[in-house]
Amino acid sequence: MAIHRFHPTHYYPTIGSHEPVLRIAGGDSVITTTIDAWGQDLHGNQVGPRPNPQTGPFYVEDAEPGDTLVMHIDHLTPNRDNGFCKTVLAPNVVDPESVADLPGEAPVADWHIDRANGIATLRSPETRLGAFTVPLAPMLGCFGVAPEDGQAISTATSGEFGGNMDYRGFVAGVTVYFPVFVPGALLHLGDGHAAQGDGEILGTGIETSLDVQFTVHVLKGKQAGWPRGENAEYLFTAGNARPLDQALQHATTEMVRWLLQDYALDALSANILLGQCVEYDIANVFDPAYTVVCKMPKRHLTGLTPRGSA
Amino acid sequence: MAIHRFHPTHYYPTIGSHEPVLRIAGGDSVITTTIDAWGQDLHGNQVGPRPNPQTGPFYVEDAEPGDTLVMHIDHLTPNRDNGFCKTVLAPNVVDPESVADLPGEAPVADWHIDRANGIATLRSPETRLGAFTVPLAPMLGCFGVAPEDGQAISTATSGEFGGNMDYRGFVAGVTVYFPVFVPGALLHLGDGHAAQGDGEILGTGIETSLDVQFTVHVLKGKQAGWPRGENAEYLFTAGNARPLDQALQHATTEMVRWLLQDYALDALSANILLGQCVEYDIANVFDPAYTVVCKMPKRHLTGLTPRGSA
Amino acid sequence: MAIHRFHPTHYYPTIGSHEPVLRIAGGDSVITTTIDAWGQDLHGNQVGPRPNPQTGPFYVEDAEPGDTLVMHIDHLTPNRDNGFCKTVLAPNVVDPESVADLPGEAPVADWHIDRANGIATLRSPETRLGAFTVPLAPMLGCFGVAPEDGQAISTATSGEFGGNMDYRGFVAGVTVYFPVFVPGALLHLGDGHAAQGDGEILGTGIETSLDVQFTVHVLKGKQAGWPRGENAEYLFTAGNARPLDQALQHATTEMVRWLLQDYALDALSANILLGQCVEYDIANVFDPAYTVVCKMPKRHLTGLTPRGSA
Amino acid sequence: MAIHRFHPTHYYPTIGSHEPVLRIAGGDSVITTTIDAWGQDLHGNQVGPRPNPQTGPFYVEDAEPGDTLVMHIDHLTPNRDNGFCKTVLAPNVVDPESVADLPGEAPVADWHIDRANGIATLRSPETRLGAFTVPLAPMLGCFGVAPEDGQAISTATSGEFGGNMDYRGFVAGVTVYFPVFVPGALLHLGDGHAAQGDGEILGTGIETSLDVQFTVHVLKGKQAGWPRGENAEYLFTAGNARPLDQALQHATTEMVRWLLQDYALDALSANILLGQCVEYDIANVFDPAYTVVCKMPKRHLTGLTPRGSA
Repeated sequence: MAIHRFHPTHYYPTIGSHEPVLRIAGGDSVITTTIDAWGQDLHGNQVGPRPNPQTGPFYVEDAEPGDTLVMHIDHLTPNRDNGFCKTVLAPNVVDPESVADLPGEAPVADWHIDRANGIATLRSPETRLGAFTVPLAPMLGCFGVAPEDGQAISTATSGEFGGNMDYRGFVAGVTVYFPVFVPGALLHLGDGHAAQGDGEILGTGIETSLDVQFTVHVLKGKQAGWPRGENAEYLFTAGNARPLDQALQHATTEMVRWLLQDYALDALSANILLGQCVEYDIANVFDPAYTVVCKMPKRHLTGLTPRGSA
Repeated sequence: MAIHRFHPTHYYPTIGSHEPVLRIAGGDSVITTTIDAWGQDLHGNQVGPRPNPQTGPFYVEDAEPGDTLVMHIDHLTPNRDNGFCKTVLAPNVVDPESVADLPGEAPVADWHIDRANGIATLRSPETRLGAFTVPLAPMLGCFGVAPEDGQAISTATSGEFGGNMDYRGFVAGVTVYFPVFVPGALLHLGDGHAAQGDGEILGTGIETSLDVQFTVHVLKGKQAGWPRGENAEYLFTAGNARPLDQALQHATTEMVRWLLQDYALDALSANILLGQCVEYDIANVFDPAYTVVCKMPKRHLTGLTPRGSA
Repeated sequence: MAIHRFHPTHYYPTIGSHEPVLRIAGGDSVITTTIDAWGQDLHGNQVGPRPNPQTGPFYVEDAEPGDTLVMHIDHLTPNRDNGFCKTVLAPNVVDPESVADLPGEAPVADWHIDRANGIATLRSPETRLGAFTVPLAPMLGCFGVAPEDGQAISTATSGEFGGNMDYRGFVAGVTVYFPVFVPGALLHLGDGHAAQGDGEILGTGIETSLDVQFTVHVLKGKQAGWPRGENAEYLFTAGNARPLDQALQHATTEMVRWLLQDYALDALSANILLGQCVEYDIANVFDPAYTVVCKMPKRHLTGLTPRGSA
Repeated sequence: MAIHRFHPTHYYPTIGSHEPVLRIAGGDSVITTTIDAWGQDLHGNQVGPRPNPQTGPFYVEDAEPGDTLVMHIDHLTPNRDNGFCKTVLAPNVVDPESVADLPGEAPVADWHIDRANGIATLRSPETRLGAFTVPLAPMLGCFGVAPEDGQAISTATSGEFGGNMDYRGFVAGVTVYFPVFVPGALLHLGDGHAAQGDGEILGTGIETSLDVQFTVHVLKGKQAGWPRGENAEYLFTAGNARPLDQALQHATTEMVRWLLQDYALDALSANILLGQCVEYDIANVFDPAYTVVCKMPKRHLTGLTPRGSA
């Protein structure tokens, strides 16, 4: 149950079987930092490659292929007082016939991050929005574990192993579950956003560097097919693919699998339950793989005996 | 400002330029009923065709092509004490490789609708869910106005004119805006659901017959491209198409159009605003045209002078 | 076995249960004309509505729901010496990031149609292509039978009933099979192209008016799910939907159905045969519903006993 | 202009910056072998990992990022007398509602490869097809160059760097052009098919091991965005993505880029030319990334002065 403080000095633009930077055990926590999507640290210095340079990987003792890596996000805070976002909608989120109507100029916007008051304020460009503010809601945009077969996947995209899901639900307090593909799982993390709308439709959130604390566990012999998460209200699953239809298929299929694995449901009851109670989030509709999140409200599961209980 | 009571005797399986059943004026309200998706009325009698038979159309005086029809949903209540739903996930919402794992049996489920307590309770089939309950949240699944060029579109699908959007956000209290394509707009409505999950992934909500009250207005000379809505918290737009990606493009494009029409925003500020604050709902991912809803929280618009104000 | 000469005086912008213009019997042929996609006849006069105004409908005696209408395209010839095409790629066929690079100017191109020599020559705009020529390959862009339930579908789109498939394989010599949804089938036709590339990626072929001759038959009690066709080399099926993936699913599923209906194949052998021998055409990737054509070379079927033979 | 004979002893399941097995120069040829998709060599011995194990990589002297690698496929022949294929259509190529109708049994089929007569004959399973034959048309299913940023991409999928495109047009006689991302390009090849239908809709062609000869060149400073190819009749480009719509967008955009790079065309003339003359092939509709090929018949380019000629 150690707490490790790790100061990264090198960042990867891929998620893969890189040399681990630290070995940690189930129950351990790590306090570390991430740099922003363009490689800038808390001082604004360019210290890593684009895009979405990753801190890690962390080798988790005893995690083996076929297990599930549990990562509790204990704490996420911007560690500088500014962030940036793109300012023009991604051309793939508007009608093709309307792409030519998008703003031609595309300045990068600068936001002031006010941690004391929990808000981000638009400083530039000057628009009719004036000093527009949004609440801080810090999230991890890109994180995951090494994929199988020696693959090294660009942090631009995502897959069964996680990656650049850009889901605004990955905030402090959430527990994330990743399938383990390689010994030690090899957890990577980066690409913090101070806030983001659904879909990341500008191609960025409010990008910034973060202070992060997380805690890991290993569920031996428990298999997941896609990243899963849990917060106070929901179980959720993330499907990563294009088009959105396929991302939704992955997420829905994984939720059915989870309900059958962990709850005393047969297929028919799981189908009815999901059909009447499911909620979906469109996490990102910008990256090479889109992400759809399938959510099951936990309140509907309270009456159901978890599988295996007496 | 009349209140009309209309008792339907005939129902259409298409939305089109049918003979109007009633002529109403801007400001008028109509109290009427809809039958369920399979054509059964409050007594369970089969009185209309499948699918989604429509009450109406209502001819709204002074509504002309190029105008917007405003329809406020005043009141929606199930008018019988039972509903039904399908029980197996639509094969298009799970991975193609998992379709064979869906439950083979597909009984239609029967729900007791308890209006006094505001809940629906699963009565059959018998599953591990037992007497599972969900809160009533009555909605209109299929409604809209006659499309242009003499088209008559099946109530299975949807388009710019509305139709079978199966969005669980179309509840009492919502104001809906439809583009007008033909003189009188010709408003149709039907396909009530006592409750529904996101996406209508079983292919049905809890289908039932409804008592409905709505009020109409006409916005002269105001053009919308797709159905719009408004509730206490949100402006929203509905895009109808396959795949989800295109439905999202339609909805997002329409929201930009709305923000530029009605608020003192230029394109760049509208893009930034939407990028950081947008929310999406997956309304239906079952019908021939899927529906994605693009939502703008109204709290972010409060500081912005509506266009045309002094 | 009559030959009818029909001179149209009215054209529909939808395919639906319109009043028939002529009643014909199985074995009969019709000699008629179609006007171009924008409603212009052989003299260049605007005589019909946009888009794709239809000649017909023709009521085929004895055709009833559940039957198949056979339409042999006997003859198709441009009946004037000019055609036109759009000149800029549809924005949906290039990468969204490249839409802004499409030519901004979008003149309509004028082509000289030289029937004697079987070529079309670009006359304007002046480009580096000079007097560019393509061989004439006249085809029907939009044709089909009335859909069920009283629907009237815009000639912009297509479905199980046919419609605006814009497939360059629908040329003289081809036999087309349509499912029959209403008594008399109600055959419509229009939207001739003098030539067209795959996908109709400009949004038009070389649009012109046509002289047409076709012959009809009815296959009693034989059900098809989607339009089918046959030429000297291929059996083919047309699937109409968005995205291309779904159009391909429809076409492939229909081809399997056809092989099992008409040839002495079980499912496994039909799967292997199709897997090794299938060819696909992308017919149109522009219209609201895209069209993919699934083709089975007839040479691979010659050794196979047709079902029902002794 | 050396001819190298290379006997592979190790095979990679990814395409990436692996240690080169041989350094070759522009103008050099390589005579080598590939093993089949499941890792079996000419003797049927399992000597490599699944899926699609790659021979190579070959380091091409002087190839640098920003250049184009030219690979002429000189010779491709099966080097054993048997191949195999799957026998059930991939569930994603039929309607979701029809997946349950696919054959439940899924034996792997065995084909006899008769090189003398140029045919493959189905030996098992026993079906109504009997001793069904198809002509040999040997092709490379998976080949390409190392992607940027140290990525190592599974041979299950494809991208700008090539990979598992499963296009039956990659046969002997074709010249392929790959963008170069890393010094030496690092060419990999494998996954031979004795024959294949469009789309690889069974999830395999007739998989076998091959004797291969190819010749490389480097085009200094010439940039391509996606794999390109050329045969006697066509220039073609391959777009790799899901859904098919996006694969087609990539391929079409790349063809426009090529026409503007190499021919004396402006954007408008390239659009008109492509619009009337383009052909598309659906190369694969099975792998994680689908492949669409955009083809421009070279006969339409003969009158056009290549850019830069005197």
